[in-house]
Amino acid sequence: MSEHIVSSYDNDLQGLRRRISEMGGIAEKMLVDAIAALLRGDLPLAQTVIASDSRLDILQREIEESAILTIARRQPLAVDLRETISAIRVSGDVERIGDLAKNIAKRALAIGGQLQPQKIAAGVQHMSDLVLAQLKDVLDAYAQQDTVKAVDVWRRDGAIDALYTSVFRELLTYMMEDPRNISFCTHLLFCAKNIERIGDHTTNIAETVHYLVTGENLAIDRPKNDRSIDATVGAGA
Amino acid sequence: MSEHIVSSYDNDLQGLRRRISEMGGIAEKMLVDAIAALLRGDLPLAQTVIASDSRLDILQREIEESAILTIARRQPLAVDLRETISAIRVSGDVERIGDLAKNIAKRALAIGGQLQPQKIAAGVQHMSDLVLAQLKDVLDAYAQQDTVKAVDVWRRDGAIDALYTSVFRELLTYMMEDPRNISFCTHLLFCAKNIERIGDHTTNIAETVHYLVTGENLAIDRPKNDRSIDATVGAGA
Repeated sequence: MSEHIVSSYDNDLQGLRRRISEMGGIAEKMLVDAIAALLRGDLPLAQTVIASDSRLDILQREIEESAILTIARRQPLAVDLRETISAIRVSGDVERIGDLAKNIAKRALAIGGQLQPQKIAAGVQHMSDLVLAQLKDVLDAYAQQDTVKAVDVWRRDGAIDALYTSVFRELLTYMMEDPRNISFCTHLLFCAKNIERIGDHTTNIAETVHYLVTGENLAIDRPKNDRSIDATVGAGA
Repeated sequence: MSEHIVSSYDNDLQGLRRRISEMGGIAEKMLVDAIAALLRGDLPLAQTVIASDSRLDILQREIEESAILTIARRQPLAVDLRETISAIRVSGDVERIGDLAKNIAKRALAIGGQLQPQKIAAGVQHMSDLVLAQLKDVLDAYAQQDTVKAVDVWRRDGAIDALYTSVFRELLTYMMEDPRNISFCTHLLFCAKNIERIGDHTTNIAETVHYLVTGENLAIDRPKNDRSIDATVGAGA
C-alpha cells in the first residue's frame, strides 16, 4: 500500500471512531435525561430526549455507509477489517440504546409527572445508575480497545438483571394493592425492561470489543440473573 | 477474476443464502409453536421452542464469520458486497426474532396453562397470524430479491401496531377488573410487545432487501400506529 492509501484508510477509521464517540455521548445523555424526566416528571426534558434520537439514526446510517465504502475501497484485512465490521455492530447497539431511552421518555410524557412510591423510584434510579456506568465503561473499552475492561462489563450485567427482577416484583405488588396504580406501573414495568435491555446492548458491545481485539468471540451463553419471568408467577400465586 | 475464484465466491454466497433460509424456517416454526404453547398451555411445546433457539445463535455466528471471511478473501464490490453485508444484517434480525419467540415460550411456561379470556387470546392469535405472514413474505422477498414485496411488508407493519394497541388496552382493562389477573396479564403484555417487535424486525429485513437490491436506504421514518403508550394513560385516567 502506498502511504497515500494508508493515510486515507486511517482517515476512514478515524471518521468511524469519531462518529461512534459522538453516538455514545448522545446515548449516555439520552439515558440520563430520560430517567430524570421519568422520575421528576420533567416533561420538557422528555421532549428533548425524544428530539435527540434522530441524530443517532443519522449517525448510524453514516457509519454503516462509510464502513461499507471503506471495505469496498480499501479492502482491509485482519484487524483492520474487524475494526470496520465492529463499527457497524457497535453503532447498531448504540442506536438501539437511543431507541430504548426515547421510549422511556415517551412513557415519562404519558405518565405526566404522576407521583410514584419512593421505593420504586429508587429501584429504577439504581438500575439506571448501574446501566449508565456499564455504558460509559464499555464505550471507553471500545475507544481504548481494552478487552479486560470489556470482559468486566460483560460479567457485571448479572447485577442489573437481579435488580430488574426485584423492581419488577415490587411493581406487581403495587399494582395488586390498588388498581389505580396499574396504568402507570405498566409504564414503569416497560421502562425497567428497557433499562435491562440497554444493559444487554452494553454486553453486546463488550463482545464486539473482545472480537475486535482478539478476533475471537466470547462464549455465547452469559450467566443471566433475570428471574422476572418466574417472579411474576410467584407474585400472582 | 478467474472462473475458479468466481465459482468459490458463488459457493460462499450460496452457503450464506442456505443458512439464512434455514434460520428463517426455524424462526417461523418457533413463533408458531410459541404462540400455540401460550394459548393452549402446551408446556412441552414451549420447552421445544426454548431448545430450538441455540441452533439460531450458532447459525448467526456462522453467517457472520463466513460473510466476513468472504469480504476479506474475495473483496466483493457493489451488489456482491451488499449481499454479504445484507446476510449479516438479516441473520441478526432473524436471531432476535428467535429470542423474542423464546421469551414468549418462557412466559407460556410461567403462566402454566392458566386459562385466558377468549377475546384476549383471539387478539394475540390475530397479531401473531399477521406477523407470521409478514415474516414469511419478507423471507421470500429476501430469497427472491423482490423489492416490491419487501416494500409491501414494510408498509403493512402499521396494522400490527394498531392491533397491538387494542390488545394492550384490553389487557389493562382486564387487570383493573380483578387483581388476580395482573400476574398473567403482565406476561401477556410482554408477549404482545414481543410479537409487535417481531413485526419491527420484519420491517428491518424489508429495509435490508431494498438496500440489497437498489443500493439505497428506505426513508428512516416509517408511519407508526402504535398508540399503546397513550392507551395506557387513557385506560388509567
